[in-house]
Amino acid sequence: MSKELTKRAEDYSKWYNELVVKADLAENSGVRGCMVIKPYGYAIWEKMQAELDRMFKETGHSNAYFPLFVPKSMFEAEEKNAEGFAKECAIVTHYRLKNDPDKPGKLMVDPNAKLEEELIVRPTSEAIIWSTYKNWVQSYRDLPLLINQWANVVRWEMRTRLFLRTAEFLWQEGHTAHATKAEAIEESEKMMHVYADFVENFMAIPVIKGLKTETERFAGAEETYCIEALMQDGKALQAGTSHFLGQNFAKAFDVKFANQEGKQEHVWGTSWGVSTRLMGALVMTHSDDNGLVLPPNLAPIQVVIVPIFKTDEEFDAISAVANDLVAQFKKLRISVKFDNRTTQKPGFKFAEWELKGVPVRIAVGPKDLENGTFEIARRDTLSKEVKSKEGIVNYISDLLEQIQSDLFNRALDYRNTHVTEVNTFEEFKDVLENKTGFIAAHWDGTPETEEKIKDLTKATIRCIPLNRVEEEGKCIFSGAKSTGRVLFAKAY
Amino acid sequence: MSKELTKRAEDYSKWYNELVVKADLAENSGVRGCMVIKPYGYAIWEKMQAELDRMFKETGHSNAYFPLFVPKSMFEAEEKNAEGFAKECAIVTHYRLKNDPDKPGKLMVDPNAKLEEELIVRPTSEAIIWSTYKNWVQSYRDLPLLINQWANVVRWEMRTRLFLRTAEFLWQEGHTAHATKAEAIEESEKMMHVYADFVENFMAIPVIKGLKTETERFAGAEETYCIEALMQDGKALQAGTSHFLGQNFAKAFDVKFANQEGKQEHVWGTSWGVSTRLMGALVMTHSDDNGLVLPPNLAPIQVVIVPIFKTDEEFDAISAVANDLVAQFKKLRISVKFDNRTTQKPGFKFAEWELKGVPVRIAVGPKDLENGTFEIARRDTLSKEVKSKEGIVNYISDLLEQIQSDLFNRALDYRNTHVTEVNTFEEFKDVLENKTGFIAAHWDGTPETEEKIKDLTKATIRCIPLNRVEEEGKCIFSGAKSTGRVLFAKAY
Repeated sequence: MSKELTKRAEDYSKWYNELVVKADLAENSGVRGCMVIKPYGYAIWEKMQAELDRMFKETGHSNAYFPLFVPKSMFEAEEKNAEGFAKECAIVTHYRLKNDPDKPGKLMVDPNAKLEEELIVRPTSEAIIWSTYKNWVQSYRDLPLLINQWANVVRWEMRTRLFLRTAEFLWQEGHTAHATKAEAIEESEKMMHVYADFVENFMAIPVIKGLKTETERFAGAEETYCIEALMQDGKALQAGTSHFLGQNFAKAFDVKFANQEGKQEHVWGTSWGVSTRLMGALVMTHSDDNGLVLPPNLAPIQVVIVPIFKTDEEFDAISAVANDLVAQFKKLRISVKFDNRTTQKPGFKFAEWELKGVPVRIAVGPKDLENGTFEIARRDTLSKEVKSKEGIVNYISDLLEQIQSDLFNRALDYRNTHVTEVNTFEEFKDVLENKTGFIAAHWDGTPETEEKIKDLTKATIRCIPLNRVEEEGKCIFSGAKSTGRVLFAKAY
Repeated sequence: MSKELTKRAEDYSKWYNELVVKADLAENSGVRGCMVIKPYGYAIWEKMQAELDRMFKETGHSNAYFPLFVPKSMFEAEEKNAEGFAKECAIVTHYRLKNDPDKPGKLMVDPNAKLEEELIVRPTSEAIIWSTYKNWVQSYRDLPLLINQWANVVRWEMRTRLFLRTAEFLWQEGHTAHATKAEAIEESEKMMHVYADFVENFMAIPVIKGLKTETERFAGAEETYCIEALMQDGKALQAGTSHFLGQNFAKAFDVKFANQEGKQEHVWGTSWGVSTRLMGALVMTHSDDNGLVLPPNLAPIQVVIVPIFKTDEEFDAISAVANDLVAQFKKLRISVKFDNRTTQKPGFKFAEWELKGVPVRIAVGPKDLENGTFEIARRDTLSKEVKSKEGIVNYISDLLEQIQSDLFNRALDYRNTHVTEVNTFEEFKDVLENKTGFIAAHWDGTPETEEKIKDLTKATIRCIPLNRVEEEGKCIFSGAKSTGRVLFAKAY
């Protein structure tokens, strides 16, 4: 099975597309640009959701649900936001079908059921949520509002790719309202840190925290914080964003509160989100030419047990041992599968679980039974070892933690060796083409230079790193003064 | 606060609408027919989701996600299903907005961005899912497919009411595919039982299991199983449905499999769902003129502690005791809130938590500290008692279980006294108008009689109970022969 997978070195993009489908994560649907998330892929997403949800609640947020549709007049109220999304909106114009008189058995849109006002399928929910917050906030006592929503959103992308860019995707969007600017900024920074914590410690993907430039900022935000990850092909991927919205939406939707002195003020806002795009980051950070490699924290199946047998007696004896192991793993809340199918051979099973990225495989044959051993294989390193059955469950429990941290460190090493400082535009182009990765370079701070560099090289400024060193320098493109380096890269 | 709530006896419908809003469950949005589910309401829904999800997984189902949109040609493939939903579909016709040249700052639908084929916002997902299953099923080895989806759906209802009937609602929809008719029927029955188990044991709402008549059946199903609950005003509410789809969708989407003999057969299907409508059932089964009454299993806050104090010293002493209680409750995984607001008086807090249905309230004042007691109030009975602090946490843990079962039994008593057997149409009308509830009556089995009775009385056949007794009788309307009683009621 794994033989059919294109090699990364051959065609990284093809490798990705094939792997997502073959590993049963997702597939394209019969609806343009929309994907079907298959049970195995969805099980990984559920693990992400559960952990993020726990983190949001721990930081004081509650979930709620707001409408899918946004009336056009509401959508356009915050002009920059509306302008930013206008070109990729799915628009509902009618509310009824009727029988097509010319085609028996077929339906047509009923022209008599035209909506008075068109409805936009939410590309993001600031407009609908701030129009609601208007009624929820009167006094400083009503603040802060710390709300999150798990939802589907639609952005009519012309070129789509599974998980990375789809017309419909799943995400969470936090929308908070605060009495002061400082508190709102603190919230947007806090959620960037929550995202970084999640992506690094749970997904084993190292990220760089930073600020977006004005050009790359969320439409309607005053400031966009982001976390940027680096994929194996040297391209960057924006893994999450957190926006300080200033008073933009409060002004657009007239959301005011009486402060402690009884004066009316506009509310300060934030919004922040991560999406099923993270599934793409997961695949492209850890997986290899044999298939998916899953960090144990996210693996729907953490351990698979494959029996190797010829006779029914052997199968029964192995099953007894395997079932005992399963019970022990379950006590430790380790998710385990005993692959006792008799319709497939061990080699087939090995390839299948390798393709699906199960972190640890245990093989048991008649000889193992005799010797009191198991063959343990790690998916990440593809290494195998024979271990005594004594203490095997605790050994594997530790091994899973080891794999989780090894995956992070391996990705971190790769990322760290792919942040290159350059001081000339020639160097810049050379690194971009030949070494790839993040390029730390001086930039004059103008959108014009940013755009010219993008036009010439397809590289964009991924972020202004939060931890950057103040350093006098000259813009690699214009030669104008700069006070610190920003990170460029080609990006997904 | 509770004084403002309309009394049930005065206007049940107004009581419901007010309560849903005042208890912070949900409110109408700026989008016609769509609701905002507020954090407190959503927290209850999350508890329902978690328990249902656990039950689905325990019965072998996995979650997945399918597109929001259904192309018209796909939607109309199963003709009966399409016909059933055609009149209430939101339809996407365009994919872009542009600046309105006549109105600066405003947007308009870009006429150049018309979709070649219209997209229906899913009112239910059989069409999109069976069009996908076609590629997932080749052989009997690929069956059964046991898949569930948590999603939003849209049905363009003309008259909407919070939770009970909204244009957009949240639900889960199970869609399964089987090799044999028997297995599919078994699955649809099993899920009806799962729903009944959940609604009775988790929501404390008694239900009657039954079959829908042909008229009330899901569009595209061969058989619809349902669970029917009875609200306090004597109206029935369909709490969940499970459909045996026969081979209808398999035929419409050409989903075939090779059986063990290698012969091609069409797959057998089921679908089943419950929705945020259950939130309405919850409110209308247990709540009273003082506000919400929540079964402990569903209460976001199970126990609230209200301090009664005048001085800072008293507050500090009470806080120490309360915080100790909180810690003890948390160990038992009982969700507890210490309402230590200094901005509100105890009377206000009592009314607020009563309105929000918190099952148990503990009040602590200076005298309680002296005496080593607490005042315990039950939300369901509104009774109070003073209890010694010894063993109080275990006492309340037991009390929560008691309340859960008392609520069920109270609702069951009400339901049982509101199933009335009648043998004439006069009696039927009399019971329907004066006693209300379910009416067990003989019916001749024809859609014509069913419709006439509905036209004359607004009562519909809620179900043919699964446990009905075979009994010779005459249809109360036509006088024709009948072999058993069916349940009529006015319904939500």
